[in-house]
Amino acid sequence: MWELLQDCWKSFPVDYFLKLVSDNAKLSSRQRVNSELFTLTYGALVTQLCKDYENDEEVNKQLDKMGYNIGVRLIEDFLARSSVGRCQDFRETADVIAKVAFKMYLGITPSVTNWSPAGDELSLILESNPLVDFVELPDNHSSLVYSNLLCGVLRGALEMVQMAVDVKFAQDTLRGDNVTEIRMKFIKRMEENLPAGDE
Amino acid sequence: MWELLQDCWKSFPVDYFLKLVSDNAKLSSRQRVNSELFTLTYGALVTQLCKDYENDEEVNKQLDKMGYNIGVRLIEDFLARSSVGRCQDFRETADVIAKVAFKMYLGITPSVTNWSPAGDELSLILESNPLVDFVELPDNHSSLVYSNLLCGVLRGALEMVQMAVDVKFAQDTLRGDNVTEIRMKFIKRMEENLPAGDE
Repeated sequence: MWELLQDCWKSFPVDYFLKLVSDNAKLSSRQRVNSELFTLTYGALVTQLCKDYENDEEVNKQLDKMGYNIGVRLIEDFLARSSVGRCQDFRETADVIAKVAFKMYLGITPSVTNWSPAGDELSLILESNPLVDFVELPDNHSSLVYSNLLCGVLRGALEMVQMAVDVKFAQDTLRGDNVTEIRMKFIKRMEENLPAGDE
Repeated sequence: MWELLQDCWKSFPVDYFLKLVSDNAKLSSRQRVNSELFTLTYGALVTQLCKDYENDEEVNKQLDKMGYNIGVRLIEDFLARSSVGRCQDFRETADVIAKVAFKMYLGITPSVTNWSPAGDELSLILESNPLVDFVELPDNHSSLVYSNLLCGVLRGALEMVQMAVDVKFAQDTLRGDNVTEIRMKFIKRMEENLPAGDE
């Protein structure tokens, strides 16, 4: 599994500064921290993107793209740290995302709900969202999906375990909704890219 | 003390999305999280700044400025969470930064060392730096001070408790040094800005 992941990574356009996660030993020694510095740093990132791009839609797209690049890297850390094995189906995957991954990286446990009859679509309901602590949306950014990075992270991470998904915010407390809802749709199981020359 | 801090804040150019930290009750309920998502998000921020600015010096300046804006907000969270009172002198301040603040937000405890004879300058030695996990500096960014946000955070936070300091990286494992060293110099104790009309 590790070799496969490493190999998939090689084919990705690796972000400018980010090398492959290779030192697994390091993972277990890392400390848990409070998330406020992260929250404020994320605010600085969104602010910078709003300066850089003309409209909210472009910023949303950029946040999703950055999140994707983060997700394809974060998955190895997650698998190493959580000892979670291969999920049997989308329901199990959703449970692991909510109860293990969100808990691990954001300190919250969304509820998994609103399943579609076909079982290919669900909602993650976040009672609170650490990314938006300290945040208020100015009136002129009514189309900004402030936390859109999270959608990209989920999309990127799941793609590395051969699941193509569509992820988007359906509700957001920042826009006055009572809860924050991330809607996730299973698209297809992807072919495993076997390393070249490997059978 | 709270009123004073709140009041100081009002005179600061508040960042685009960041409102004043006012809900202290929320602070204590927040969970501790793993820092990898933060580390990768910080990488995305630095990458974006490198696209936006012409040279490393400008990026360093921008990171310091962003860090400053973060520091002036993070201090309230820190004071509420740590229950640290007013420090007697710069030595005590340095100890609190290393043993409480770094531990709280980055999960590491730098050693405080290399005091100047006058006791106004010191080094924080970081055996490891979570911000640079997964990171390698490309050759064409040899002047980039990748973690410079931290200097700004320290400068901004200390300014809110009336301490003007100069903070910079003296060594960096990213550039091949054995440790990461943040050099901090006490400049002056600032006048407390008493609220207008208050005696």
